Amino acid sequence: MELLRLYDFLPSGNGYKIRLLLTQLGMPFERVEVNILKGETRTPEFLSKNPNGKIPVLEIEPGKYLAESNAILVYLSEGTEFLPYDRFLRSQVLQWLFFEQYSYQPFIAPSRFWISILGKPEEYSDALKQKREPVYAALNLMEKHLTYHTFFVGERYTIADIALFAYTHVADEGGFDLTQFPAIQAWIERVKAQSRYISIKDIHKDMEF
Amino acid sequence: MELLRLYDFLPSGNGYKIRLLLTQLGMPFERVEVNILKGETRTPEFLSKNPNGKIPVLEIEPGKYLAESNAILVYLSEGTEFLPYDRFLRSQVLQWLFFEQYSYQPFIAPSRFWISILGKPEEYSDALKQKREPVYAALNLMEKHLTYHTFFVGERYTIADIALFAYTHVADEGGFDLTQFPAIQAWIERVKAQSRYISIKDIHKDMEF
Repeated sequence: MELLRLYDFLPSGNGYKIRLLLTQLGMPFERVEVNILKGETRTPEFLSKNPNGKIPVLEIEPGKYLAESNAILVYLSEGTEFLPYDRFLRSQVLQWLFFEQYSYQPFIAPSRFWISILGKPEEYSDALKQKREPVYAALNLMEKHLTYHTFFVGERYTIADIALFAYTHVADEGGFDLTQFPAIQAWIERVKAQSRYISIKDIHKDMEF
Repeated sequence: MELLRLYDFLPSGNGYKIRLLLTQLGMPFERVEVNILKGETRTPEFLSKNPNGKIPVLEIEPGKYLAESNAILVYLSEGTEFLPYDRFLRSQVLQWLFFEQYSYQPFIAPSRFWISILGKPEEYSDALKQKREPVYAALNLMEKHLTYHTFFVGERYTIADIALFAYTHVADEGGFDLTQFPAIQAWIERVKAQSRYISIKDIHKDMEF
């Protein structure tokens, strides 16, 4: 088997999705840190891997690259317990993955970036205000769903949970308060209880070179 | 076979993706117009179909709903010529679908909405300015790719082309000039030449009740 190589940035929630799934799949991988704060996703070398200049990028075999965190999740989970076989359930997973990238991540991820990664909440206070309403709208939607479901799709842990968990479990780092969302909090604990769980801060030295 | 029902808004590019694919698949469907300008996606009845309050929504069988245009594209195209069977090619289709929803549609679609659907370019002039750079960045990326490829994935027409075509072929309605993108223009003509092609303005009365 080819060893997978993940171009990643440790604080990234999108990168963490892939690290978490690979670890839970028991697949060894080589992690290459790409510091987005130093412009390392804008070099000609990196752009030859992903012209859109974003991590994560998975190198499946030498010279064969896949970008977009949720596309990578689907690629890695096909044929495993993390993606349902049933066509409609699988489509519901995709529905949540697109929800995450369209209605949630573009609002919660920058908030966390400005506050906890750049450490500049004052400089970005206007932009932070604009992001609050859509994040709470998404959290309300998730809360309602999780009030009646243990996981997002099919009552079992799938890549839909991984995708939505990545930024939700560190929502406080973006200035968001989860105390008003008891169903989300209970779901976070259920995700953390999954076997081979790693936190966003774990590199899992034993899984990589 | 159950008759599919599509909750749709005729001017919507996201809705058009589904209309186009269903027509090209030769699948009859019932179209239900939901006027987003009149708040019809915010009613309790519509929110029971899609809690995120967005069209398109596909009713696969009575009471079974699927939202998110690109998730619907994947659902409908599985096992057809519009989605590659090869795992890596299929992942590249997903990569472009997520690119479309994250790096392109959120910028080009509102521009078209403000200018050509609401008809209020002056009122939204500041917001329109903010959207220009990301749209042209996405168009540049697409132009580079299409300079060396006839279609987005695997040198054949797939749902990746449908997803990216929906807003691109009406880019002028969002104030974007495609004359500087010859490869995109040639690709638009190739898409329009596909069999059973319908335009965004065609309802195809013969396909619905």
